[in-house]
Amino acid sequence: MTERPDTPSANQMWGGRFASGPDAIMQAINASIGFDQRLYAQDIAGSRAHAAMLAAQGILSNKDAEAIGEGLLTVLSEIETGNFPFRVELEDIHLNIESRLTEIVGDAGKRLHTARSRNDQVAVDFRLWVRDQCDAAISGLTALMQAFVTQAEAGADWVMPGFTHLQTAQPVTWGHHMLAYVEMFARDRSRFEDARRRMNECPLGAAALAGTSFPIDREMTAKALGFDRPTANSLDSVSDRDFALEFLAASSITAMHLSRFAEELVIWSSAQFRFVRLSDRWTTGSSIMPQKKNPDAAELLRAKLGRILGATVALFTIMKGLALTYSKDMQEDKEQVFDAADTLMLGLAAMTGMVGDMTANRETLKTAAASGFSTATDLADWLVRELGLPFREAHHVTGTLVALAESAGVDLPDLTLSQMQGVHPGIRDDVFAVLGVENSVRSRMSYGGTAPDRVREQVARWKAALG
Amino acid sequence: MTERPDTPSANQMWGGRFASGPDAIMQAINASIGFDQRLYAQDIAGSRAHAAMLAAQGILSNKDAEAIGEGLLTVLSEIETGNFPFRVELEDIHLNIESRLTEIVGDAGKRLHTARSRNDQVAVDFRLWVRDQCDAAISGLTALMQAFVTQAEAGADWVMPGFTHLQTAQPVTWGHHMLAYVEMFARDRSRFEDARRRMNECPLGAAALAGTSFPIDREMTAKALGFDRPTANSLDSVSDRDFALEFLAASSITAMHLSRFAEELVIWSSAQFRFVRLSDRWTTGSSIMPQKKNPDAAELLRAKLGRILGATVALFTIMKGLALTYSKDMQEDKEQVFDAADTLMLGLAAMTGMVGDMTANRETLKTAAASGFSTATDLADWLVRELGLPFREAHHVTGTLVALAESAGVDLPDLTLSQMQGVHPGIRDDVFAVLGVENSVRSRMSYGGTAPDRVREQVARWKAALG
Amino acid sequence: MTERPDTPSANQMWGGRFASGPDAIMQAINASIGFDQRLYAQDIAGSRAHAAMLAAQGILSNKDAEAIGEGLLTVLSEIETGNFPFRVELEDIHLNIESRLTEIVGDAGKRLHTARSRNDQVAVDFRLWVRDQCDAAISGLTALMQAFVTQAEAGADWVMPGFTHLQTAQPVTWGHHMLAYVEMFARDRSRFEDARRRMNECPLGAAALAGTSFPIDREMTAKALGFDRPTANSLDSVSDRDFALEFLAASSITAMHLSRFAEELVIWSSAQFRFVRLSDRWTTGSSIMPQKKNPDAAELLRAKLGRILGATVALFTIMKGLALTYSKDMQEDKEQVFDAADTLMLGLAAMTGMVGDMTANRETLKTAAASGFSTATDLADWLVRELGLPFREAHHVTGTLVALAESAGVDLPDLTLSQMQGVHPGIRDDVFAVLGVENSVRSRMSYGGTAPDRVREQVARWKAALG
Amino acid sequence: MTERPDTPSANQMWGGRFASGPDAIMQAINASIGFDQRLYAQDIAGSRAHAAMLAAQGILSNKDAEAIGEGLLTVLSEIETGNFPFRVELEDIHLNIESRLTEIVGDAGKRLHTARSRNDQVAVDFRLWVRDQCDAAISGLTALMQAFVTQAEAGADWVMPGFTHLQTAQPVTWGHHMLAYVEMFARDRSRFEDARRRMNECPLGAAALAGTSFPIDREMTAKALGFDRPTANSLDSVSDRDFALEFLAASSITAMHLSRFAEELVIWSSAQFRFVRLSDRWTTGSSIMPQKKNPDAAELLRAKLGRILGATVALFTIMKGLALTYSKDMQEDKEQVFDAADTLMLGLAAMTGMVGDMTANRETLKTAAASGFSTATDLADWLVRELGLPFREAHHVTGTLVALAESAGVDLPDLTLSQMQGVHPGIRDDVFAVLGVENSVRSRMSYGGTAPDRVREQVARWKAALG
Repeated sequence: MTERPDTPSANQMWGGRFASGPDAIMQAINASIGFDQRLYAQDIAGSRAHAAMLAAQGILSNKDAEAIGEGLLTVLSEIETGNFPFRVELEDIHLNIESRLTEIVGDAGKRLHTARSRNDQVAVDFRLWVRDQCDAAISGLTALMQAFVTQAEAGADWVMPGFTHLQTAQPVTWGHHMLAYVEMFARDRSRFEDARRRMNECPLGAAALAGTSFPIDREMTAKALGFDRPTANSLDSVSDRDFALEFLAASSITAMHLSRFAEELVIWSSAQFRFVRLSDRWTTGSSIMPQKKNPDAAELLRAKLGRILGATVALFTIMKGLALTYSKDMQEDKEQVFDAADTLMLGLAAMTGMVGDMTANRETLKTAAASGFSTATDLADWLVRELGLPFREAHHVTGTLVALAESAGVDLPDLTLSQMQGVHPGIRDDVFAVLGVENSVRSRMSYGGTAPDRVREQVARWKAALG
Repeated sequence: MTERPDTPSANQMWGGRFASGPDAIMQAINASIGFDQRLYAQDIAGSRAHAAMLAAQGILSNKDAEAIGEGLLTVLSEIETGNFPFRVELEDIHLNIESRLTEIVGDAGKRLHTARSRNDQVAVDFRLWVRDQCDAAISGLTALMQAFVTQAEAGADWVMPGFTHLQTAQPVTWGHHMLAYVEMFARDRSRFEDARRRMNECPLGAAALAGTSFPIDREMTAKALGFDRPTANSLDSVSDRDFALEFLAASSITAMHLSRFAEELVIWSSAQFRFVRLSDRWTTGSSIMPQKKNPDAAELLRAKLGRILGATVALFTIMKGLALTYSKDMQEDKEQVFDAADTLMLGLAAMTGMVGDMTANRETLKTAAASGFSTATDLADWLVRELGLPFREAHHVTGTLVALAESAGVDLPDLTLSQMQGVHPGIRDDVFAVLGVENSVRSRMSYGGTAPDRVREQVARWKAALG
Repeated sequence: MTERPDTPSANQMWGGRFASGPDAIMQAINASIGFDQRLYAQDIAGSRAHAAMLAAQGILSNKDAEAIGEGLLTVLSEIETGNFPFRVELEDIHLNIESRLTEIVGDAGKRLHTARSRNDQVAVDFRLWVRDQCDAAISGLTALMQAFVTQAEAGADWVMPGFTHLQTAQPVTWGHHMLAYVEMFARDRSRFEDARRRMNECPLGAAALAGTSFPIDREMTAKALGFDRPTANSLDSVSDRDFALEFLAASSITAMHLSRFAEELVIWSSAQFRFVRLSDRWTTGSSIMPQKKNPDAAELLRAKLGRILGATVALFTIMKGLALTYSKDMQEDKEQVFDAADTLMLGLAAMTGMVGDMTANRETLKTAAASGFSTATDLADWLVRELGLPFREAHHVTGTLVALAESAGVDLPDLTLSQMQGVHPGIRDDVFAVLGVENSVRSRMSYGGTAPDRVREQVARWKAALG
Repeated sequence: MTERPDTPSANQMWGGRFASGPDAIMQAINASIGFDQRLYAQDIAGSRAHAAMLAAQGILSNKDAEAIGEGLLTVLSEIETGNFPFRVELEDIHLNIESRLTEIVGDAGKRLHTARSRNDQVAVDFRLWVRDQCDAAISGLTALMQAFVTQAEAGADWVMPGFTHLQTAQPVTWGHHMLAYVEMFARDRSRFEDARRRMNECPLGAAALAGTSFPIDREMTAKALGFDRPTANSLDSVSDRDFALEFLAASSITAMHLSRFAEELVIWSSAQFRFVRLSDRWTTGSSIMPQKKNPDAAELLRAKLGRILGATVALFTIMKGLALTYSKDMQEDKEQVFDAADTLMLGLAAMTGMVGDMTANRETLKTAAASGFSTATDLADWLVRELGLPFREAHHVTGTLVALAESAGVDLPDLTLSQMQGVHPGIRDDVFAVLGVENSVRSRMSYGGTAPDRVREQVARWKAALG
C-alpha cells in the first residue's frame, strides 16, 4: 500500500466528469426527462382530455381524436410495463410521449399540440401530480390519526407525567397525550385539504402564456381532469408555483409534528426513561448487544423535517424575483417536490406503523408521574377552592408544604395532616384526596382536559370522524 | 492618526458586553419583556374575558371581577399613554400586567390567575396577535389587489410584450399582466383566511397543560375573545405553534409574489426597458444625476422575501424535535413572527402605493411588443385553422417564414404575399390580419386569455368581488 | 364584557399603521438610521482614516483634516454619551454624522466626502463591524473551550455511558465527552479566523463603484484601519456581501454545536437521567415545585440555531440574483447580521457560564455506564486478541454470551467462568478484567481514545494552547 | 372520455405505495445502499489502509492483509465494471463490500473489521468523499476564473455602463466587470481550501465511539489516506458533520455568486439590453421564433442557489439538537451533500462554458455607457480638483448643470462653455476632457479602479496566479 489514496485526483474527477464537452454539460443541466418522467400518467391524462375537447369543439376530427386517445393508452401501457423507449435528446416527458404517439398514430399525433403549448402542458401535469400528493397526504394522515386514536382508547386512563421543559409538571393520561397528536395531524390534514381546493383550477388552455385564438372549451377539459374550474388568467397560469410552495409548507409543518413525536420516542425508549417499547420492526439491534434497540426509524423521522424544509427553502429561493412568465428556473421545482412528497408519505407510513406497534410501560409511566410533587397544583387549587385563598397566596402555602416534604425526604401525600396544618391551619383531611395522581387526572374535567372521561369523549368524537 | 483603529478591541468588546456577570447574561437571554410587551392588548383582553368567566361560574366574586376588569382598563390606558412602569425583573408582559393590576386593585388581582397558567395565557395572547395579523394581511392584500385592478382597467387594451425567459414571446395586454398579480394575491388572501379559520380556537383553559379542576366555561371565554370554539386538547394547546408557522408560510408565499413584481419594476424602470415610470415617492435620486431614479422601494420589496423566509426557517428549526409540552425554546417564536408580520404589512402598503402611482409607457410597451416576430404563433395558428395544416407542420412553415423575414431584415407583416406563398402556396391575403399585435391580442379570446374583452370581464368580476 | 374583543379591528390596524400616508411608508421601508447607527464607531474610524489620507496626499489641507479629525471625535463623544441628535430624515448613520460634523467644523466637513462615496463608506463600515464580531466570537469560543477543559480535567476518569441512538453503547469518560466539544469549538474558532483573514481587505477608495481620479493612497487607509491590504476591484468592493455570509455560516455551525450540548443538558437534567445538575443561575423554578429546575437557558441555546440559521437563509435569499453593483436590497444585510452576532455572543457567554457552573452526578453516571452490557465490545475484542477469533466470529460468541446473561437477568461480569466456557471453551479467567467499566475505559488507549491517560494528555495540550 | 381522471385515486396510491407492509417501509426508510454506494472507492481505500496498518501492527497476519488488499481491488473492479451484486438487505455500502470480500477471500475477510466500527468507517468514507469534492470545486473555480480573465483581457478597455440599482451610474470597463467575478470566485476557492485543510484529519480508529484497546497506529492510516493527522477525540470523530456543513456553506456562497452573473446574463441578453450574445450551445430556441435565444443555462444556474441552499438548510436542521454520538438522523447527510456537490460542479462547468463562449456587443455597451449623464461625478470631481470647491458644493453645481442639460434635451458634453459658466463662472474649456466616457474610465486610476491600465495590471496578476 502506497501513501497515495486510491481515490482519483481532483483533476481527474473534474476532467472525467465533464470530459464529453459542452454539449454534454448543457444536456446534463438542461434535460428534465431524468426526473419529469414521473409525470407520465398526468401528461397522458391531460393530453387525452385536450384531444377529446378539440374534437368536441370541431378543431380536431373525431377520427384523429380517437386515434390520439387510443395511441396515448398504448404509450401509457408501454411506460407502465417498462417498454417505453425514453430518449434523453427529446429532453422531457412531454416530447417523449408526443414523439412516440406520432410514431404510433402518424399525422394525427402532429395535431395534438393544437391550441396548447408546453407551458400550459407542464403546468397542468405538475398540478395534477401535486394534487394527487395532497390526496395521498390526506389518506396517510388519516391512517396515522387512527393509529393514535387506537392508542388513546387503550390508555385513556393510564397515568403518565406531563412535562414542561422535560421536567414533570402534572400527571396526565396516555390517551390525552396521544390525542394531542391527533389534533396536530388533523390540522395538518385540513391544510392539505385547503391547498388541494385552492390549486384545483385547470391551467390547460393558457397556451404559451396569452391564451389562444382557437375556440377551445376550457370548462370541458377542467371537468374531465377533475378540476373545479379553469384558471382565470393565462399569464398567472404558466408563471406561478405557489401551489407547490403551499404543498411544501404544509408538508414541512406535518414533518415538524412528526419530528416531535419522533424525539419523544427516542427519549422514551432510552434506558433511563423506558416509557415505551418499540417493536423490533422499527428498531435495529446490535449483533453483540441484543438488548440495545436503536430507534432508527424514529431518528430518521426526526431528521426528515430537515429534508422537507430544505426542499421548501429551495423552491422559495428559486422563485424569488422571477419576472413573468415562465423562466427555465422553474424547471427546478419538480425534484424538490418529488423528494419532499416521497419523504412525507414514507414518513407517515413509518410513523403509523410505529405508533401501531409500540407498547407503553404503564408501571414506569405511573411511577414517574407520581414523583416530583406532581400534584402540587392540585393542592394549590384545593386551597383556593375549599379555603377561598387568593390564587397567589395558595401558591405560597403550597410552596411551603412542598419544601417541607422535600426536606423530609417524602412526597406530598406522605405528609401528616398536622404537618400540613402547621403550615396552614385550615387544611382538612379531605385534602389527601387530591394528592394522588389518579384523582388528579380525574379532576381535570375542564373541556379539553386530561380526565379519562374527557379523553374517552374525544376518542369517541375522533372515531366517528375518522370512520 | 495612529495605525490603531478607533474601534474597541475584541477583548474589550467581549468583556464589555458581559462585564456585569452571569445574572445579567441570564436576564438578557431569558427575559422576554423587551419584545412581548407588544402583546399587551391581547393579554388584557384575555384576562378580562377570563375574569368575567370566573365570576359567571361563581369562582370569583362579582366585585373582584369588576375590580379586575376596571383595573385592567387602567393598565391598558397606562400602557397606551406611555405611563406604564415596565420592569425587566418581572421578565414578561404577563407578570408585568398582573403585578401592576395587584398594585391598583389589591387582593382581587391575586385571584385573577385562578384556573389558568402562564402557559395557556401566552398561548391565547399570541394566537390573538397572529389572528389580528391575518386580518391585517387580508386587508392589505385587498388594497393591493384594488390597486392592480385599477391599473388593469385603465390599460385593458394596452399592448405589451409577454415574456418567457425575459424574451418576447407573444403580445399581451397591460391589463392582463396586472390581473395576473390579482390572481396571485387573491390566493394569498385566501391562505390567510384559511389560516385564520384554522387557528381560531381558544387555548385559554388548558391551564398549565392538563386542564383544570375548576368548573370553568371555556365556551364563554372563547366566544368573548371572538374564537369559534375552545381547543379540544390541553396538551396540544400549550405545545404547538403550527398556527404561527402557517402564518409565516403564507407570508413567505405573499412575499415571493411581491418579489416578482418588484423585480419587474426594477427591470422595467431601467433605461434599457423604460416600460414604466415610478413616482418620485418610491424612488430616490442622486443630487448630481437628477434623471437617475433608483427604484429603492422596489428593491427593498424584492429583498423582503429573504427576511420573511428567514423567519420561517428560524421557527421551523426552533420547533424541530421538541418534546411536549411547553419548552422555553418556544419563547423564540415571537420575535420572528413580529418581524415577519411588520415586514409583510409594510411591504403590502409600499407595493400598493407604488402600483397606484406608477405610469406605463404605452408607446414603448407597444413597440417592444411588435418586435421580435412576436406574432409568429398567430401565423402558425392561422395555418392550422385556415389551411388545416397539422400543428407541427404549421410550426415548420412559420419557422421558415420568420427566417425569411429575419434574413431580409424585416418583421413578419413586412413580407409580401408572394414571398409568403413562396414558402407555402396556400397562404392568402387575409393572413396579414393576424400579424398585427392589436389583432393578435384581440384574438386570444379563450377563457383567461389576454384579449381586452376578456380582461374587462375579469376587471368587472374583481371590482364586484373587491367592493 | 361584550362579545367583541378589546383588540382593534383589522381595518383600524391597517389604517392606523399607515395612516400617515405614502411618505411615512417610504421612510419606514427606506431609512436605515434605526439600525445602522450601530456602525457609528466604524463610520467615524473610517472617516478619520480617509481624512488623514486625503491630507497626506495633498487633496485636503492639513488644517481641514485636523478639524475633521477633531470634529469626528466630538461626534463620537456625543454619540457615546447619548447626546447626539439622530435625525431620521437624514436616513442613515453616514449622513447623520457628516451633517453633524459640518455643523461643528463648518466647510471642512463638506470636503470630507471627496474621493469617496456612500457605497465604499458603507462597505468599509460594515466590514469593520463584522471583523470585530469575528474577534468577539474568537474570544467567546476561547472562553467556552476553557470552561470545557476545566470540566474535562476534573473528570478525566469519571465513567459515564457513551451513547449511540441515545442508547448505551460503551463506557466513556466525562473528560472525554467534554473534550469532544473542545474539538468542535476549536474548529469553529478557526472558521472565524479564516473568515476574518479573508475579509480583511479594505474597500475604502472604491468610491461609487469605479474607483476615483483623485490620487488617493489606499494602502494608507487600509493600514490605518487594520486591514491587510486594499481590495483589488472596485466593483466587487461595493457589490459583495460574501464576508457577511461567511460570518453567518460560521455562526450557524457554532450554534449547531451549541444546540447539541444544550440538548444533552436538557436530557441530562431530567429526573429520569439526573446526569448533571445545573446551577440555579441558569434554570428557573416554580414557586410551588421547588425541586423543578427548568433548564431555560439550555433550551434557549438549543433554539438559537434557528434564529441564526434564519438570518443566514435571509441574507442568501436577499443576495440571490442581484445584478452588480450596489442595489438597495443589500441594505437588508445589516439587521440580519446584527441579530445573529448578538445572539451568538450571548449564547457563547451563557454556555460558558452554564458549563462552568454545572455539576456531574458521578455515581449516576457510573451506574448508567455499567448497565446494558456496555462492555460487550470489550469482551469481543478480548476474544479476538487473546483467542485469535476472527472479528465477526468473536462478535457472534459475544452475542451468545450477552443473550445468556440477559436471560439470566444478570450483567456480563456476573456470569460464571463455566457458563462462559459453555459458550466458548477457550475463555479464561482473565476475561473478567475487561468486563468492568473502569478497566474498559482504561483500555481504550488508541490516540484520541477515551482512556483517562489519553484524556489528560489532551487536557494538557489544550491548556497549553488556550493559555 | 369520462369525467374521472386517468390518474389513480389517493387510496390506490397510498395503498399501492406501501402495500408490501411494514418491513418494506422500514427497509425503504432505513437502507442507505441506494445512495451510499457512491462511497465505494472511499470505502475500499479506507479498508485497504486499515488492513495494511493492522498487519504492520501485528494485529493481522501479512497473509490475511494481502488477501484483503487484493480482494478489495477485485471488489473495486467489479463495482467499476458494473458487475457487483448490490444487495439491499445488506443495507449499506460497507456491509455490501465486506460481505462480498468475505465471499472472495474467505475468513480473512471476517478479520478486516477488527479495531474499527461502522461508525468510524462511515466517518472516514464520507470525509474522503467531501474532501474530493473540495478539490473538484477548487479545480472548477480555477477554470471559471480563467474564463473570466480571458474575457477581461480581451475587453480591458471596452466601455460599458456601471450600474447601481440597475441604473447607469458611471462608465466602467468590460474587463473590470469580468475581474469583479474573478475576485469573488477567488474568495470562494480559498473557502474550499480552508474547508479542505480543516477537515483533513482522519477519524479512522475512533471505532464505535471510544477508541479501541488494539494497538493501532492511527498516524499510519491517516498518512496512507492523505490526511494531515488523526482526529484527537473519538467521540467527536463519529458525531460531527461540521465539515459537510462547511462544504455546503462554501458551495452556497459560490452558488450565490453564480446566480448573480446568471441574472446579468439573462438581463443582458434581453432584446432591450443586447449587451451580450450567448452562444447557441447554452441557449434554446423556438422552432418558430429562430431569433429567440432563451438563456436556459443561465436561468438554471440562477436557480441552483436554491437547490444548494436547500441542502444546506436541510443538514443544519437535521443536525440541530442531536445528543452525542452517532444517531441515525445523520444518515440523512449524504444525499444532501451528494446533490449539492453534483449541482455545484455542473454549475461551474456550465458557467465556464458560457463565459468562454459569450460575445460582448461593444457598441451597445458603449452607447449605453455614454447616456444618462454618466460622467456627472467626473464633472464634480473636476470642480473639486481644479476649482477647489468643497465636495458638497461641487455636487450642487453639477446637479444644476445636469438639470440644465436635461431640460435642453442634450447630454453633458453637448453644453456650451458659456452655458456652463452661467452656472459657475470658474469653469474652463478643459472641463470637456473629463466628460467623455473613454476619458472617464482612463482617469479612474486609483488602485482597484476601472482604468484600462489598472485592469491590465490585474489581468497580468491573475494570469500569473492561475498559471
